[in-house]
Amino acid sequence: MCLPGTIESVRAQTDERQGVTRRAAVLGAAGAALVASLPAGARAARTASQRIADLTHTFRAGFPVYTFAPPSRRTLVTIPGGGFYAQEWTFGEHSGTHMDAPGHFVAGGRLSPEITPAELVLPLVVVDIAARASADPDTTLVVDDLIRFERRHGRIPKGALVAMDSGWSAKAADPLAFKGGAAGDYHFPGFSREAALWLVQERDVAAIGVDTLSLDPGDSTTFDVHVDFLATDRYGLEGLANLDRVPPRGAAAYVGLIPWEEGSGGPCRVLATW
Amino acid sequence: MCLPGTIESVRAQTDERQGVTRRAAVLGAAGAALVASLPAGARAARTASQRIADLTHTFRAGFPVYTFAPPSRRTLVTIPGGGFYAQEWTFGEHSGTHMDAPGHFVAGGRLSPEITPAELVLPLVVVDIAARASADPDTTLVVDDLIRFERRHGRIPKGALVAMDSGWSAKAADPLAFKGGAAGDYHFPGFSREAALWLVQERDVAAIGVDTLSLDPGDSTTFDVHVDFLATDRYGLEGLANLDRVPPRGAAAYVGLIPWEEGSGGPCRVLATW
Repeated sequence: MCLPGTIESVRAQTDERQGVTRRAAVLGAAGAALVASLPAGARAARTASQRIADLTHTFRAGFPVYTFAPPSRRTLVTIPGGGFYAQEWTFGEHSGTHMDAPGHFVAGGRLSPEITPAELVLPLVVVDIAARASADPDTTLVVDDLIRFERRHGRIPKGALVAMDSGWSAKAADPLAFKGGAAGDYHFPGFSREAALWLVQERDVAAIGVDTLSLDPGDSTTFDVHVDFLATDRYGLEGLANLDRVPPRGAAAYVGLIPWEEGSGGPCRVLATW
Repeated sequence: MCLPGTIESVRAQTDERQGVTRRAAVLGAAGAALVASLPAGARAARTASQRIADLTHTFRAGFPVYTFAPPSRRTLVTIPGGGFYAQEWTFGEHSGTHMDAPGHFVAGGRLSPEITPAELVLPLVVVDIAARASADPDTTLVVDDLIRFERRHGRIPKGALVAMDSGWSAKAADPLAFKGGAAGDYHFPGFSREAALWLVQERDVAAIGVDTLSLDPGDSTTFDVHVDFLATDRYGLEGLANLDRVPPRGAAAYVGLIPWEEGSGGPCRVLATW
């Protein structure tokens, strides 16, 4: 098959995740000719009937972490040097947008490969406490927030992922702001133990999630939510992004956890569709 | 909230991905009491109306790679030692079940964070060439395979992920068998350049995938599919698993690529639902 073409094409694309317009692929001549030959609108039409949001931060070197070293990367090979491009990564499992599996805090608890596919595709509920959190970084999501949510939006479905939107994901670019203080003096919102266990006992949810560094509030020293919620054999998600872009109820979440061998959780791609 | 309970519970679970029965979470007393209090069948009922398959290999230390060192991991902290458990990982981006982004082979091509969410949720098509591949490890998926597929299963939809099932994922436990030889003499199936470009020009697919180490067949020295398919600004998936468990057409694929900063692709969790 002959692929003639001598032009190069620079396509301006919108990076949906970051919401910024960026200059994208400078295609080779053959590729540009192929792309130019496509019917107009063909690529954009793929998901015309479905809304998608990305609840994931870019996994980047230096992303703020609760403890241990932040992620790092190095270039292994470049196209000019070796004909292709690839990087190497080193990071702790609790970096970026990631899962806490039960075994992160529970001896003998399930590890990353044991979280079943059925647990990774689930109804999404987003509880907004951003207004209160902007005035008080030590606030928690409490049972009253859940009751008020249900009065307005209806019952939280069984098997849901219930995510706290505290507005914190906007701070992720600044480690000190995201942590709300230096190590040992963190201040950011989290779930109260009572709310997390109410969701288990009264609504049988599958998972909880936060847009901060920890399921527990930053000033916790006892990690009650980690200890007691994960002990119910459910998982938590930390470092979620863009929760303000999805409806409070009605979306489905896809939790793309890499099945890290013997993993305590680990980085995952979380998408929402509705 | 008081969580009484003195028993410990050992739950036997089926690991859906590996198809083996394993002993799972030994829950703490409080967690066991909570789980025991759930309505019977509540947890299993979550996805009763939907089939799910996991197209992802466990991301493990030593998983066979085309080049560079295989993934490695070390324990950072243990529950007895530090109150929680976590690992650290080091690996090249082309390890395990992973994506090749356009920028892997195309200078200026899009990188991992630039693959849009809309490109990660797409129709899945599986083309089975396993019978031929079992007799000839150097075989390729050719245009005739696609034409035969369409005669039997209908037209390949625009925007699809078209995956080659060569039966190779069963060999992943044995690096020599998976590679089909020592470095420099690999033998495993792949896409022919003509078939990959037919899918672009005639069907406007979004992506192709393989259950082997490379989009190109193992004996390729020119990497035509990498060069010419990625140059069309589309992505490839390598190291897919369990393709024989999904229908040839009609499933949706969710490609949970971690948005690795400046990534050439990288590990992703791929699920299929139908």
